[in-house]
Amino acid sequence: MTTIPPARVGMSIDQIDTPALVIDLEAYERNLDRMAGKLHGSPVRLRAHAKTHKCAIIARHQMARGAVGVCCQKVAEAEALIHAGVNNVLVSNQIVSPQKIARLVALAKQATVAVCVDHPANVRDLGRAAASADVRLPVLVEVDIGAGRCGTAPGQPTVDLARAIAAEPSLRFAGIQAYHGKAQHIYALADRRAAIEASVMLTRQTVGHLKAAGFNSPTVTGAGTGTYELELASGIYNELQAGSYVFMDVDYAKVEGSPHEFEHALFVLCQVMSRPTPDRAVVDAGLKAHSVDSGLPRVHGRPDIEFVGASDEHGTLKLRDPAAAPALGDLLRLIPGHCDPTVNLYDWYVCIRKNKVEALWPIIARGAIT
Amino acid sequence: MTTIPPARVGMSIDQIDTPALVIDLEAYERNLDRMAGKLHGSPVRLRAHAKTHKCAIIARHQMARGAVGVCCQKVAEAEALIHAGVNNVLVSNQIVSPQKIARLVALAKQATVAVCVDHPANVRDLGRAAASADVRLPVLVEVDIGAGRCGTAPGQPTVDLARAIAAEPSLRFAGIQAYHGKAQHIYALADRRAAIEASVMLTRQTVGHLKAAGFNSPTVTGAGTGTYELELASGIYNELQAGSYVFMDVDYAKVEGSPHEFEHALFVLCQVMSRPTPDRAVVDAGLKAHSVDSGLPRVHGRPDIEFVGASDEHGTLKLRDPAAAPALGDLLRLIPGHCDPTVNLYDWYVCIRKNKVEALWPIIARGAIT
Repeated sequence: MTTIPPARVGMSIDQIDTPALVIDLEAYERNLDRMAGKLHGSPVRLRAHAKTHKCAIIARHQMARGAVGVCCQKVAEAEALIHAGVNNVLVSNQIVSPQKIARLVALAKQATVAVCVDHPANVRDLGRAAASADVRLPVLVEVDIGAGRCGTAPGQPTVDLARAIAAEPSLRFAGIQAYHGKAQHIYALADRRAAIEASVMLTRQTVGHLKAAGFNSPTVTGAGTGTYELELASGIYNELQAGSYVFMDVDYAKVEGSPHEFEHALFVLCQVMSRPTPDRAVVDAGLKAHSVDSGLPRVHGRPDIEFVGASDEHGTLKLRDPAAAPALGDLLRLIPGHCDPTVNLYDWYVCIRKNKVEALWPIIARGAIT
Repeated sequence: MTTIPPARVGMSIDQIDTPALVIDLEAYERNLDRMAGKLHGSPVRLRAHAKTHKCAIIARHQMARGAVGVCCQKVAEAEALIHAGVNNVLVSNQIVSPQKIARLVALAKQATVAVCVDHPANVRDLGRAAASADVRLPVLVEVDIGAGRCGTAPGQPTVDLARAIAAEPSLRFAGIQAYHGKAQHIYALADRRAAIEASVMLTRQTVGHLKAAGFNSPTVTGAGTGTYELELASGIYNELQAGSYVFMDVDYAKVEGSPHEFEHALFVLCQVMSRPTPDRAVVDAGLKAHSVDSGLPRVHGRPDIEFVGASDEHGTLKLRDPAAAPALGDLLRLIPGHCDPTVNLYDWYVCIRKNKVEALWPIIARGAIT
């Protein structure tokens, strides 16, 4: 159920109810500008991944700085974003159930919408639904270029599926999605580069196969915050799907190299609710306030404090410097271990500038998982 | 933001939009009845933990079967439950910020509400707020009997804090909370029993200290699904805070002994969205559809299928029997690794009986973390 916002515009940061999901607007805006600067003058466009932020306001900020549109993973996310005015959305995922396909083609009447496929039965189902809704739906083939999740094999299987799409009058073959999710989080730069070199080679070969079969100049979309500079330099991608760069989490901070241009802009503001021993504090932010799937959060600006354990509603802190120990009631900022599933726990971003609440942004696609 | 329910009453299970959080009503009702049967005729009452289910309907089912009330961890949870008619709520946690304390004492005008403390400054703040709201608030001292999270030390420090409570005219010392959270998940029965024997001894000593200081017959509340039979048998507890027994997750299924009386009653219904290779399927339920903090989910009734990896919106399955492999579009039921944070991802329970949707129950305290 939608929760009451934990703050009001104009409040100082210490009046915010905790735990709250806070955006430092200055760091956030610098992140947006840095990514826009990287792509400025290049034929490669950002298709920002909205699965990270689930917020139409942020999507519009990205598009105002040059993003061609956004992508998202779920029809329900696309619905929320399109209904809030975002007019170009790629569903970067397979949509297979009849009710979801019906919702997808209905959206295509309201905005520019595209979708990914990796199975001929799905192509037929999409074709039939698009025909009956009287839309022509752009469809991309997802190619598995190393991630080992969804996708056709590179080369001929991808061409075969492109042909199946082209054979459906209500569909349009729009290109390929070649995204290597796992590579984003390979910490060592050399290993990450090697993974992307291999995936770029497969992507390039597949584009060659497609051209030989008469499919020219398709969209080639993929990449993420961990690797986008490599795909940008490849000359084969023309859309980049980075998402986490807006916020930067602890896991991306472990990735060696370019992601470090981006700053931590997303925090879980929490409060010390117990000081049971000199070296232990407990805060009011546990597993329901941040996601630990990619590791524990860090305490922002406090190298003397280690977040050592999360239970459902508690975070346990080890205090390495008792002289600087936080007192009962003190506020701390956690940098989430993984921003995407953390954002999905909240209904509101509390946006601060110089320690004052400047805005409350609704996370309209929170919980939009169908 | 509140999501549209993924089903309608009367639908068959295969028409439910996925992923969806599904309750098998028959297993759920058997779990409720089993726990009620265990406590029938005993002076020990269930104070069911509503942090697990966050649902007033389930709270009322528990109270109709003998539970004295519920407990929860957050003022926002108590607000949601009380506003939906649950009239006896212990906030089994420390509430320290002025705005939260104001909300808490306001609730005490609407229902029977109690709270835990472990710090004298918090006792003073509660006393002042209760006085100005003109309520007399029951307060329990949380004692750390081995969990190493919040709580006073057993024995004299607990008595000192009870005295501080008794000295505040607007507060009433109501007993102690002695909950050993970590012990719930000690898999080996002998080790779990040893942990609870030690914690029961500390609890008993503390009750002795309190009696010697004139604090007679207080409430002694604690325990969980993993250990409740041990606290029940101890003769010192008079309230048990079990919560997960209603649903049973994969982690509790690993706990040797009594929790096995309870059945898996909560599932994430998901759909096969990709079949890229003969031994791999991908479902539409990732980190935003179930929480992996305590391990990966299991595929219900399918020992031939292993859930091997979750990304934000995908679950990757290893298929050990290609002949029985699920097809694109097939539905599967996941048993969540950890039910509490999984429930917190959803707005609706889809309640099924004999494969038909019988009810949609709102998870009114979803996201209620302040």
